[in-house]
Amino acid sequence: KKPVAVSEYIFRRLHEIGIRSVHGVPGDFNLVALDYIPKAGLKWVGSVNELNAAYAADGYARTKGISALVTTFGVGELSAINGLAGAYSEHIPVVHIVGCPSTISQRNGMLLHHTLGNGDFNVFANMSSQISCDVARLNKPAEIAEQIDHALRECWIRSRPVYIMLPTDMAEKKIEGARLDTPIDLTEPKNDQDREDYVVDVVLKYLHAAKSPVILVDACAIRHRVLQEVYDLVEKTQLPVFVTPMGKGAINESHPSYGGVYAGTGSHPDVRERVESADLVLSIGALKSDFNTTGFSYRTSQLNTIDFHSTHCTVRYSEYPGVTMRGVLRKVVERVDLNKLSRPPSPEVVNEVAKNRDDSETITQAWFWPRIGEYLKENDIVVTETGTANFGIWETKFPPGVTGINQILWGSIGWSVGAAQGAALAAKDAGVDRRTVLFVGDGSFQLTAQEVSTMIRHNLKITIFLIYNDGFTIERFIHGMEAEYNDVARWNYTEVPTVFGGSDKQVRKLVIKTKDQLEKLLVDKEFNEAGGLQFVELWMPKEDAPRALKITTEVAARNNARVE
Amino acid sequence: KKPVAVSEYIFRRLHEIGIRSVHGVPGDFNLVALDYIPKAGLKWVGSVNELNAAYAADGYARTKGISALVTTFGVGELSAINGLAGAYSEHIPVVHIVGCPSTISQRNGMLLHHTLGNGDFNVFANMSSQISCDVARLNKPAEIAEQIDHALRECWIRSRPVYIMLPTDMAEKKIEGARLDTPIDLTEPKNDQDREDYVVDVVLKYLHAAKSPVILVDACAIRHRVLQEVYDLVEKTQLPVFVTPMGKGAINESHPSYGGVYAGTGSHPDVRERVESADLVLSIGALKSDFNTTGFSYRTSQLNTIDFHSTHCTVRYSEYPGVTMRGVLRKVVERVDLNKLSRPPSPEVVNEVAKNRDDSETITQAWFWPRIGEYLKENDIVVTETGTANFGIWETKFPPGVTGINQILWGSIGWSVGAAQGAALAAKDAGVDRRTVLFVGDGSFQLTAQEVSTMIRHNLKITIFLIYNDGFTIERFIHGMEAEYNDVARWNYTEVPTVFGGSDKQVRKLVIKTKDQLEKLLVDKEFNEAGGLQFVELWMPKEDAPRALKITTEVAARNNARVE
Ligand SMILES: Cc1ncc(C[n+]2csc(CCOP(=O)(O)OP(=O)(O)O)c2C)c(N)n1
Ligand SMILES: Cc1ncc(C[n+]2csc(CCOP(=O)(O)OP(=O)(O)O)c2C)c(N)n1
Ligand SMILES: [Mg+2]
Ligand SMILES: [Mg+2]
Repeated sequence: KKPVAVSEYIFRRLHEIGIRSVHGVPGDFNLVALDYIPKAGLKWVGSVNELNAAYAADGYARTKGISALVTTFGVGELSAINGLAGAYSEHIPVVHIVGCPSTISQRNGMLLHHTLGNGDFNVFANMSSQISCDVARLNKPAEIAEQIDHALRECWIRSRPVYIMLPTDMAEKKIEGARLDTPIDLTEPKNDQDREDYVVDVVLKYLHAAKSPVILVDACAIRHRVLQEVYDLVEKTQLPVFVTPMGKGAINESHPSYGGVYAGTGSHPDVRERVESADLVLSIGALKSDFNTTGFSYRTSQLNTIDFHSTHCTVRYSEYPGVTMRGVLRKVVERVDLNKLSRPPSPEVVNEVAKNRDDSETITQAWFWPRIGEYLKENDIVVTETGTANFGIWETKFPPGVTGINQILWGSIGWSVGAAQGAALAAKDAGVDRRTVLFVGDGSFQLTAQEVSTMIRHNLKITIFLIYNDGFTIERFIHGMEAEYNDVARWNYTEVPTVFGGSDKQVRKLVIKTKDQLEKLLVDKEFNEAGGLQFVELWMPKEDAPRALKITTEVAARNNARVE
Repeated sequence: KKPVAVSEYIFRRLHEIGIRSVHGVPGDFNLVALDYIPKAGLKWVGSVNELNAAYAADGYARTKGISALVTTFGVGELSAINGLAGAYSEHIPVVHIVGCPSTISQRNGMLLHHTLGNGDFNVFANMSSQISCDVARLNKPAEIAEQIDHALRECWIRSRPVYIMLPTDMAEKKIEGARLDTPIDLTEPKNDQDREDYVVDVVLKYLHAAKSPVILVDACAIRHRVLQEVYDLVEKTQLPVFVTPMGKGAINESHPSYGGVYAGTGSHPDVRERVESADLVLSIGALKSDFNTTGFSYRTSQLNTIDFHSTHCTVRYSEYPGVTMRGVLRKVVERVDLNKLSRPPSPEVVNEVAKNRDDSETITQAWFWPRIGEYLKENDIVVTETGTANFGIWETKFPPGVTGINQILWGSIGWSVGAAQGAALAAKDAGVDRRTVLFVGDGSFQLTAQEVSTMIRHNLKITIFLIYNDGFTIERFIHGMEAEYNDVARWNYTEVPTVFGGSDKQVRKLVIKTKDQLEKLLVDKEFNEAGGLQFVELWMPKEDAPRALKITTEVAARNNARVE
């Protein structure tokens, strides 16, 4: 009754679920589809390359909830695949649409450009199926609308990438558009109520019995969107609440219940003491990877732990498959009996600036990160890269409303530059005035530097702190402190924005070598209120690293070297 | 008897087969292995990112025969995978070594960084197996030497990438090094002699009977290393010899028998007439992809064709599986009876500069490419990118000894910048003084611009012509001549080398907007003899394209749009 082109259908659905900008790079197999992007009220980003586009889509989804990426068959999609594997690993919902040769060419096994020359048109989709929670090959018009809706729902619910293969001859095929009148159902399936009630009872039994319960919030609490439930739990119980490195930013760090970052031996000693002496840890959305736990160094017991997950819950050693955390948490909030609850006080969390200030002019890692806590302001988006930044940020106390973005599990360097672009664009698309602040190492920055071009092209409000410490410091601490392979080429970093089209009016560029220079900058009004791109080359010593990084890298090196 | 570490074994083997530089990016899972690179007499390139590294390894292999790339598990290898898929598609032998978690961590399914978080350590190897002709998982010391030797042999013989997975706990495991005293056998298996003789007889029968036979040399003649056989055939028979776009550079274009580039309707009319009127085409190493044939537009008949391939030969419709071209060609050279051979004259090939010069100051595509033919000199390495360059170069007559490098089948943009770096490094490693000349579009350049940093770091002799034509001209001709998605951000291209560390003393930077400026530059002594990097921003009109590109894109657009 209301015929619409397949491309229109897709992009209208993307708009409906909250996407406003689409990342990607054109290619002859997707060009016709791209015509439908503006028609659906979407903006085309025009990324500089596909890997950056994928990283940016990741950052966009972390800020706006979900994102989309369009690439071309073979060359484009494979360039992006590492970014999507990262999104899969880290539970980020990204819709990847790949323009591919027509079904006719595929059937005829034509020897087309962007193929392996072997007539196999499924090999790239098969690769992507390993890192996607749904694969939709849009080959039959009658099935396409259903396939798209299913893929988008899976993407959202499972919070992982989906892969949609759009052949050129399907891009403008007409399908039934009346479906578009009904929004895609994005609600999660409810738990079986009896089972859920049972788990809630068990949880409450232990919670009421505990003397010193604490809450620990990790990545999957953010990714599977139970933060409202967590806030309500904290608000009602006033229990001390900690975050893991991957959970950083999930909790208002000015809240009186907030206790800091817990990551085993890498934690602040007070935090470690507090969490490890708790007789009950309500662990929400745990993702206990090596770098999120300072090398698996938790000293908490499963006997004292209740795990809430998006697919199941575990109370001590009892598992409840299929009972997901949202419903359980909601009822725990409703039913917890405050009279029966013991509430240990929270340790105070402060930015330990003075304590970590030495007499030198050098900007040390120990001093820098707490100091940044005083510079950040409400609702900032803070992106940190693998390297010293990802560990340093543990020492930064965020103001309320700050979104922390990191990629601690996947840890692909260069990611943060794309992710910062995507995050800033998402904020802009949402119509909110937030600063995006990026902390990236000089080594990492080199991989994806041209993403600065996209930041300028879209006039995004981003402040980049480039940690200029002469190479791969994190790697030096793992192996080869003086090795040549841990050096990087010396760039004129501050000129990067200029080369990528940013005029001096548009971009502020600074070189900061001393504590005093940094102090001045961080309180500078213009710097704090800048509306566009700022680029700070920040000098730090080559062999300096945050405390937690040193411990983590020691464990990693030992683990790598271990032989039988 | 002579224990050596696995890493030493690998790198000594790489040295033995001709590799001198290893591309790649460090990661904690490969750091220990990297220590063995200098010990084996190899140089570590220190690439800016893994995709560029893979592209560069591709260019290195095209120049030096074979190449190697080291990446780290997950994040590194997947960043590179598009480059390796290109090498697979285009038959380029690249050894990809991936440092991965220890066998112990793998067995324990540890939740490590750079994993999908699901305990599956094979998923990336499985992806790479799709684009590798051998996969070696080095898990058992007793098997490792054999696995490595086998992988390197396969890489060479099949002229395609191999994937070697090196766990951290195997990097220094001692294995038997006495094997290293015997070089790896890289000789191709010989054909069954009876079958080979049979095919040779058939070939000669048709060859002797033909009135106007011609030779057509394509990509696989280069990749599977039968150029010596081809030269000998041309030298002995003096038959007219043509190349396809992917075969360009295979034949000395100053040779009196050389007739030009044949690609169906995209060919120069004289060439087309000559090839299509031949009553026998000796087609050597054909790879008839769309962009190599102006959209499958050959008007030659299989009844008049003999196909020589690396896996079989085909005479008219008779197939000879397992009879490979090298032996057959060698015997055809030996046994051809010149008295029985008809030799049509070759058309003359010249750079048609004057004919294509119009009155305007604008640098047109039609004029530029022939003009470049006069600038190029003996033994230059000429790299062209997908876009106007790859089609324009058909109109350029090369001096003797020029190596032409393109990626017409896979066509991943940005590739040429890495490939040029790799090619120039290979020439340097071989101790020969060759210029590398790169022609790359502004759009393509943006994807991998930071490879200029590696060119500077290794002080390579490269002249870059950046075709500044306001975006994706090739895409404009396919769809969306004025579409925004075919625009790219405006960069200050000439400042790119400066930002990436090149001083003005080290790098010459030029902006060329008119024919006269270009004329002057191309005869400038300093420009011709420069020993380092030169960067020319070359202005060309947005809507101008080489003749062959216009025809090819028309076919591509039609093919994409065709519906049933
Ligand atoms: C794509 C990718 N390649 C390689 C690595 C391995 N790696 C992890 S951290 C790192 C060095 C980061 O150096 P830099 O950004 O300068 O950080 P810092 O000096 O602050 O530690 C490298 C090479 C990786 N994680 N991802
Ligand atoms: C990795 C990758 N992404 C996208 C494409 C699709 N594509 C092919 S050519 C091209 C445009 C090239 O533009 P440019 O380099 O400026 O060339 P020119 O203007 O000379 O045609 C694009 C986007 C591709 N081939 N490879
Ligand atoms: Mg660094
Ligand atoms: Mg261009």
